[in-house]
Amino acid sequence: MASGQEQQHYEFSAGPGVVPGEVKAEIAANLVDFEGHVGRSIMEMSHRGETVTRVADEAEATLRALLHVPDSHAILFMQGGGTAQFAAVPLNLVGRSAAAPVRADYAVTGTWTVASAKEAGKYVAVHECVNVQKSAGRFVAVPPQSAWAPTPADAAYLYYTDNETVSGVEFSWVPTVTGATELVCDMSSNFLSRPVDVARFGVIYAGAQKNCGIAGLTIVIVKKSLLGRHRADTPTVLEYKITDEKKSMLNTPPVFAIYVAGLVFKWVQRQGGVAAMEQRAKERSAALYGAIDASGGFYVAPVEPSARSRMNVVFRIKHGDEALERLFVAEAEAAGLHTLEGHRSVGGLRASLYNAMPMEGVNALLDFMARFRAKHA
Amino acid sequence: MASGQEQQHYEFSAGPGVVPGEVKAEIAANLVDFEGHVGRSIMEMSHRGETVTRVADEAEATLRALLHVPDSHAILFMQGGGTAQFAAVPLNLVGRSAAAPVRADYAVTGTWTVASAKEAGKYVAVHECVNVQKSAGRFVAVPPQSAWAPTPADAAYLYYTDNETVSGVEFSWVPTVTGATELVCDMSSNFLSRPVDVARFGVIYAGAQKNCGIAGLTIVIVKKSLLGRHRADTPTVLEYKITDEKKSMLNTPPVFAIYVAGLVFKWVQRQGGVAAMEQRAKERSAALYGAIDASGGFYVAPVEPSARSRMNVVFRIKHGDEALERLFVAEAEAAGLHTLEGHRSVGGLRASLYNAMPMEGVNALLDFMARFRAKHA
Repeated sequence: MASGQEQQHYEFSAGPGVVPGEVKAEIAANLVDFEGHVGRSIMEMSHRGETVTRVADEAEATLRALLHVPDSHAILFMQGGGTAQFAAVPLNLVGRSAAAPVRADYAVTGTWTVASAKEAGKYVAVHECVNVQKSAGRFVAVPPQSAWAPTPADAAYLYYTDNETVSGVEFSWVPTVTGATELVCDMSSNFLSRPVDVARFGVIYAGAQKNCGIAGLTIVIVKKSLLGRHRADTPTVLEYKITDEKKSMLNTPPVFAIYVAGLVFKWVQRQGGVAAMEQRAKERSAALYGAIDASGGFYVAPVEPSARSRMNVVFRIKHGDEALERLFVAEAEAAGLHTLEGHRSVGGLRASLYNAMPMEGVNALLDFMARFRAKHA
Repeated sequence: MASGQEQQHYEFSAGPGVVPGEVKAEIAANLVDFEGHVGRSIMEMSHRGETVTRVADEAEATLRALLHVPDSHAILFMQGGGTAQFAAVPLNLVGRSAAAPVRADYAVTGTWTVASAKEAGKYVAVHECVNVQKSAGRFVAVPPQSAWAPTPADAAYLYYTDNETVSGVEFSWVPTVTGATELVCDMSSNFLSRPVDVARFGVIYAGAQKNCGIAGLTIVIVKKSLLGRHRADTPTVLEYKITDEKKSMLNTPPVFAIYVAGLVFKWVQRQGGVAAMEQRAKERSAALYGAIDASGGFYVAPVEPSARSRMNVVFRIKHGDEALERLFVAEAEAAGLHTLEGHRSVGGLRASLYNAMPMEGVNALLDFMARFRAKHA
C-alpha cells in the first residue's frame, strides 16, 4: 500500500464475495431515485411493472450473450442457493418413473458434492463414481474420469461441482456422459470465470453471491427438453418447468438481487466478457500459488497443482501452525485484507479471488505475505 | 401537490412495496462504505463474519421486541416467499405419521389461500372449512368462524391468510383452534401492521417485500415444540428445524434483504411500534374507503365493510368501467401516484397502503380521485 494514501481494502471472502467497485457506485447512485424516477427505488417497484420487467429481461439477455447460452436452454432466476438446488436437481430430473426412483451419479470432489449427494439420497438412488475423500483421505485432487467407476446406464444424470470452495479444488475439464444420462454442474463459485459450452449440460446452476452480485439469487440454466420431468410432489417453488413458464416470476422474485446481477453481467461484458475473466483468474491465481510455492515451505498449498482452484486459493502456514495462521488473519485484517481465514470445517487460510478482485488486491496480499514471512520464517 | 415544488411520488404497489424514505437514505449512505468500513459493502461481506452476524442478530432481536415474540417461538429467516411456505407448512407439520398423511384445514378467503391449499394437497389431505368463492361467488367477505364447517379433529393445523392482497380482504379477528390442531397464518401482506398474540400460533410467516423491506426474504415464526415434525423427504432448504438449529445460516442467507429488514424493524420501533402502525393503517384506509363510499357510486369498493383490507384498498370505477380505469391508472402515474392497477387476475384498481405509506400519499391520492371524479362523473 502506498503510504500517505487512504488505506485500500480488499475482500477475500468466499461468499458473499467482492462486488465490482463500479457496480457498487452505480447501485448507490440509483438507490433512492432509480434511473431518473424521482423518489422511487428499484427496491419498492412491482415485479410486474415495466421497469422491473425490463431490468430482469436485460439481465437474462446479457447473461445469455455472455455465455452464448443456446436457445435449447432456459435461464431461470430462482431462490435458495445451492442447498435448494441440491434437492431441485433430483426432484426435477427423476420424475420419469413414479414407481421406482431412478439412479443418479455423483462425482464427489469436495464438501459441497457430499452435501448435494446426501440431499439427493432423499429422492433418488445415489451412485458415487468417485469420492476423493474416501480414496485419498482428503479433498485435494480431481482424478481423471478414466479413473472413475463407470456411470450406471440407468443414471438420470452425472453431477459434479466445478469448483469446491472449502478445499479449493476445481475441475479444469468437463466430464463426458453417454446415452440418456445428463450432465449437471454446480458452478456456484466459478460461474462466469471462463467460457463454457452450455450445450453439453442438462443443468448448470450458480448462486449469485460469488461472481454475480449479492446473495439471494440462484441462476439455473436448464435444457428445455428436460422440463416436465419433475416428481409430482416437487414443491412448486423448486420446479423448473413452471419457473420457466412464468419467466421466473412465479412469485415475487428477488428483484434487487436480479438488478445487481444484471449490473454485474454488464460489467463483465465491458471488461471483455468471460474470456477476459478467465485471463484475469489465471493471472491472479498463478501469482498467488507461485508465491506460495516459492516460499520455501513457509506457505503450503495442499491441493494437487492440476486441481488447484483459480477462485479459492487454500493454503497453510508451516503445514498447519494454527497460532501463526490466526495471527496472519488478524494482521491481514488490520492491513485491509479481509476474510482470509479458511472454511470453519477445515481451518487454515483461504483467499477467494472472484471476478471482481483486482490484481492490485492480489499484489497487496502478496506484499503482506512476504512481510509476514520475513517476520516469522 | 403543492405547485412550484418538485413533484412528490408515491408507490402504491402491492409488493414489492413502499420502503420508508429514511431507510432508503440510510441504505444509500452505507452502500459503498458500510458503517465506516471504508471500501467494504454489506453486499460483499461473509455471512459468517462479525458484521453480518451482528446485523442479523439485531434484526431478529428487534423483530422479537416489536411483536413480543415469546421464547416458545423461534424466528427464522428463509427464502422463496409465500410459495415456498405453501409447501413448507405441510412438509414441516405433517411428518408425525409416515404411513398416512394427516389432514389440514384451510379457510379459503382469497386467491393466495387457494394457491396454498392446492400446494398442500401434494402432501396432506386438505379440508376446506370455508371457501368464500364457492359460497359467495367471489372473495368479498370473511364469514365468522361460527359459519365455517368444524375443523376435523385429526387436522394437523388450521391455515388462513390474514390479508388477501388480490381481492383486498382482511381478517379483523383471529380464528380459534382446539385439541392438537395448530393455527397457521400467512401474514405476508399485513405483518407488523398491528399487534398479534404470537403465542396463539403454531406458525406465522410473511414475505418481507410488503412491510419489511425488499423481496427475497421470508420471515417464519414457529412454535419450537413443533420443530422436528417434518416429513423425512422435506428439502433441507424448507426444513424449519435445521434452519433454527443453524440460526438461519444453513446456507448463505439473503444478507442484504436481512439488513434492509433490520433497518425497517428499527424504523417501526422509532415510529412507536406496531401499535402506531395500526393507528396509521386505520387512518389511511378509513380516509380512502370513506372517499370511495362518499363518491355517489363513481368509485365502488366491492368488499364487505367488515372484511375490508387496511393494506390493499380494492375499488372499481362505475362498477367496472375498464376504459375509465385504464385512464385513471395512466393519469395517476403521470401525477406521481404509482402502480394503482388491480391484480391482473381481477382487474380494477388497488391502492396498497403498507406501513411506509405516509398520510401525505393518501391525501395526494384523495385529491387526484376527487379531480378525476369531477372530470368524469
